[in-house]
Amino acid sequence: MRHTYRLNIACPDRVGIVAAVSQFLAQYGGWIVEANHHSDVSTNWFFMRQEIAADSVTVSLAELREKFALLAAEFNMEWTLLDAAVRKRVILMVSREAHCLTNLLYRWRSSEMYFDLACVISNHDDLRSYVEWHKVPFYHIPVTPERKPAAFAEIRRLFEDHAVDSIVLARYMQILPPDLCADFSGKIINIHHSFLPSFVGAKPYHQAAQRGVKLIGATCHYVTEELDAGPIIEQDVVRISHSHSIDDMIRLGADVETLVLAKGLRYHLEDRVLIHGNKTIVFSQ
Amino acid sequence: MRHTYRLNIACPDRVGIVAAVSQFLAQYGGWIVEANHHSDVSTNWFFMRQEIAADSVTVSLAELREKFALLAAEFNMEWTLLDAAVRKRVILMVSREAHCLTNLLYRWRSSEMYFDLACVISNHDDLRSYVEWHKVPFYHIPVTPERKPAAFAEIRRLFEDHAVDSIVLARYMQILPPDLCADFSGKIINIHHSFLPSFVGAKPYHQAAQRGVKLIGATCHYVTEELDAGPIIEQDVVRISHSHSIDDMIRLGADVETLVLAKGLRYHLEDRVLIHGNKTIVFSQ
Amino acid sequence: MRHTYRLNIACPDRVGIVAAVSQFLAQYGGWIVEANHHSDVSTNWFFMRQEIAADSVTVSLAELREKFALLAAEFNMEWTLLDAAVRKRVILMVSREAHCLTNLLYRWRSSEMYFDLACVISNHDDLRSYVEWHKVPFYHIPVTPERKPAAFAEIRRLFEDHAVDSIVLARYMQILPPDLCADFSGKIINIHHSFLPSFVGAKPYHQAAQRGVKLIGATCHYVTEELDAGPIIEQDVVRISHSHSIDDMIRLGADVETLVLAKGLRYHLEDRVLIHGNKTIVFSQ
Amino acid sequence: MRHTYRLNIACPDRVGIVAAVSQFLAQYGGWIVEANHHSDVSTNWFFMRQEIAADSVTVSLAELREKFALLAAEFNMEWTLLDAAVRKRVILMVSREAHCLTNLLYRWRSSEMYFDLACVISNHDDLRSYVEWHKVPFYHIPVTPERKPAAFAEIRRLFEDHAVDSIVLARYMQILPPDLCADFSGKIINIHHSFLPSFVGAKPYHQAAQRGVKLIGATCHYVTEELDAGPIIEQDVVRISHSHSIDDMIRLGADVETLVLAKGLRYHLEDRVLIHGNKTIVFSQ
Repeated sequence: MRHTYRLNIACPDRVGIVAAVSQFLAQYGGWIVEANHHSDVSTNWFFMRQEIAADSVTVSLAELREKFALLAAEFNMEWTLLDAAVRKRVILMVSREAHCLTNLLYRWRSSEMYFDLACVISNHDDLRSYVEWHKVPFYHIPVTPERKPAAFAEIRRLFEDHAVDSIVLARYMQILPPDLCADFSGKIINIHHSFLPSFVGAKPYHQAAQRGVKLIGATCHYVTEELDAGPIIEQDVVRISHSHSIDDMIRLGADVETLVLAKGLRYHLEDRVLIHGNKTIVFSQ
Repeated sequence: MRHTYRLNIACPDRVGIVAAVSQFLAQYGGWIVEANHHSDVSTNWFFMRQEIAADSVTVSLAELREKFALLAAEFNMEWTLLDAAVRKRVILMVSREAHCLTNLLYRWRSSEMYFDLACVISNHDDLRSYVEWHKVPFYHIPVTPERKPAAFAEIRRLFEDHAVDSIVLARYMQILPPDLCADFSGKIINIHHSFLPSFVGAKPYHQAAQRGVKLIGATCHYVTEELDAGPIIEQDVVRISHSHSIDDMIRLGADVETLVLAKGLRYHLEDRVLIHGNKTIVFSQ
Repeated sequence: MRHTYRLNIACPDRVGIVAAVSQFLAQYGGWIVEANHHSDVSTNWFFMRQEIAADSVTVSLAELREKFALLAAEFNMEWTLLDAAVRKRVILMVSREAHCLTNLLYRWRSSEMYFDLACVISNHDDLRSYVEWHKVPFYHIPVTPERKPAAFAEIRRLFEDHAVDSIVLARYMQILPPDLCADFSGKIINIHHSFLPSFVGAKPYHQAAQRGVKLIGATCHYVTEELDAGPIIEQDVVRISHSHSIDDMIRLGADVETLVLAKGLRYHLEDRVLIHGNKTIVFSQ
Repeated sequence: MRHTYRLNIACPDRVGIVAAVSQFLAQYGGWIVEANHHSDVSTNWFFMRQEIAADSVTVSLAELREKFALLAAEFNMEWTLLDAAVRKRVILMVSREAHCLTNLLYRWRSSEMYFDLACVISNHDDLRSYVEWHKVPFYHIPVTPERKPAAFAEIRRLFEDHAVDSIVLARYMQILPPDLCADFSGKIINIHHSFLPSFVGAKPYHQAAQRGVKLIGATCHYVTEELDAGPIIEQDVVRISHSHSIDDMIRLGADVETLVLAKGLRYHLEDRVLIHGNKTIVFSQ
């Protein structure tokens, strides 16, 4: 894999942004290997992601950042300029269902996806041995009604101690308290087992069976304080019929959940997702 | 196309239904060319559809019906035994958008789908010439707030005069009055331009854009008194991204609407749909 | 719809292309409303498509082209700079099957797709009345073995007289002679009723049934001298099972053909397709 | 999960088969929980799968089999009557790529799929530790050109010693010798990483990139002596574009391979697949 830097920009739209940025990059030898733009017409906001071959740049990343800050100020840009070789630190949170966890651990250990796995947190102890075989720390933090505050204080400490960039609720099945959602805004990714906004909350497959829909789905989204209402990163569906029981739906849905979460997380880890209000711009390939 | 009879059955589930029915058919030489069963576990109800080669049956259809009535009584069956060669009589209702109409008229005139087209009803006059080229009567019945009762009385008269089996709202964009919905229950098919139950009511693509979903869809369903809440026959979706404007969504969605309506209507015309409460059993191939 | 210019570029890859082009555009006030890049690593070739708001450009299109030629020479660019408001001239060619034709005529008459429809050519007279209702000239040019050369001479004359940019084989079912393919290279679009490279040539659905595949498809591609081997623009598939007869496959496949051809043609008409050897870069939204 | 028996039948088509079989089942109290039929028109052959609630049957399975043999003889049926509670014995064969293996081991250990896993065989030792964590025997049998006969003799011995019903080539990457294919006909399932019949043999993703297709796929099929030409059980595809490198295609394809193999294997394990010449009837739900 080529070593790259990733430059992400969001700013008010106007003529000359692309020219200024690409001229800036060319000035330092920057070879652009992937580029994406988007103009949001309703808000007149401009978004850009550039992936630049690191070895083509004639100055250090620190210096490039310093120089770019001047340009960014001129255009009122929110921006990041990240080294793709610096892996994001991730915590996985699970309950008892292992399909998403098994899949993400596979992608991690085979380097199919690049991230540092700080630890796995679960409200049950069931998956300890499987996780520990991977030499990944496993924390069992039960979340009972009475010890909820203590549990989430402990969880927060783990987030902070591990200095994580990203928390993945891989079918965690517990609702995070509002302060955690707020303090880690844009960093917590959830997989919800329905095609949102249909079937918010508990037992979405039962709700789907009740309504008699012909497709069921899954939604990967950023967690916000409002349940299942955060910016959507990725969704997909699978066809069902009257012949499928709720158990069949849970089974078929699990495969969709697994892929949608992996896809959404990959976009996030590769800095392909820009949050804009309650929506996302996803510069997927 | 082979000439067939279609036997549809719904009754309380118990041992021996299939045996009794298939023995009955065999007794009259009935060659089963397609057979489908379904047991609804939650209600303990049984559903069956048999397609029988007409030329294999040794008695007339009338006699077969008469005989079958005795068996049906024994098992408390709701049932129909229809001649597939007798085409259903259909009315299409449209507004200004022609994508569904154009597609259904093509399927009708090319015999890709079998039905008698009684007439087209529209609240606008725009599509008259196109419909009339097909030698199909076109009724322009404006639906303004003040003349709504008169308009729907006229529409009801057309339903009755044409003795129609099926009414298709091919993007009709007007809400039918409750009495029409009730009196033609199970006969009126609508295409809604969202993946229900998401985005009920007006401007679903605008609602979808607002929520930032990554797939948009369409739903073909039977019309009931509650808006967009009737039994779902068929649904499908198409992928969108941040780069698609609402106009793009309307354009991409139109192709999904067209196919979902055609598919749902085909199932209906071929007696493949059995309504069970607010759900459907669709014995698709 | 916004009035735009479309700048397409292909050239050897190197640092500074994007900078030079975007600086050039910015210099003349060019507001980029959509931008796409691609670097082909195996050939080290660079591709770019820019859509520019016409009213933002401070010089005439002719002048912009003149100035750009200098820049283009410096980078050894193949390029086009087209006015999106100038519609492409299109000829549709059909045989007896009307599904693709009906769909494209709908898109054309409803302005769902923008092009000038010069005429329809067919080797059968069946579709004359339908086409002529649209006030589009219809040419019936039979293609029998003995009069093939005469027929294709006549067809070539129509291509030339109408000064067409694009010829669409909308299930034309005749093989064009090599000289036509060569002289209109990159301008003739075909829909083949299989998922190429499987099932080249005649009766692909029969071939698919023979092999027992579980999905059937359609392929939209540029026509080259080698049958069904030209650059692919778009493909899609639909699921089938053992229960589908060849007639069912033809029917289900027709819907895929219709959509794949419409999608491929739209990309072509919007200058989103760049041909690179025997492949395409498709800058779809 | 309900305890069931599965009755599969293939025989020359004629009137009265369904009647005879369902009457037979009713006679012994057999409650049919799922039923599927298929008439192959081209060969005039009839296929049937019945799933019967075990606790509804008034005689033992042995007795039911004995009685059914008489009926079967009358109709010249090939048939099986299996106890769904008796798990099939399976051997997984892998090379170095672990995506299919990881997924199938997950489905096995979570009882998402029901089978006895006899062992895993690999031509490399890489996956030993992961497999052994699952307490599943792992055999490393290198397949070098010179020791090929010895290796496959050893593999055959494992097939026989473990009395396996099914062998799954979960990206095994070695071609089995003709005698193994013949002796275990209908029992060996392979996943090929292309949408067959396109791109038979080695490096299908490279072949796909070469041809410039817009979808790539995977095919689950029974292994026969002719390479990648056996009866197809299941296929699926995923969309790609010019922007995807071969590495991207391998990555995206791996998810399709994983799901297609799991789906195909499930159909096989649930006795839903009937082989008919070089095709399959798959009575999927």
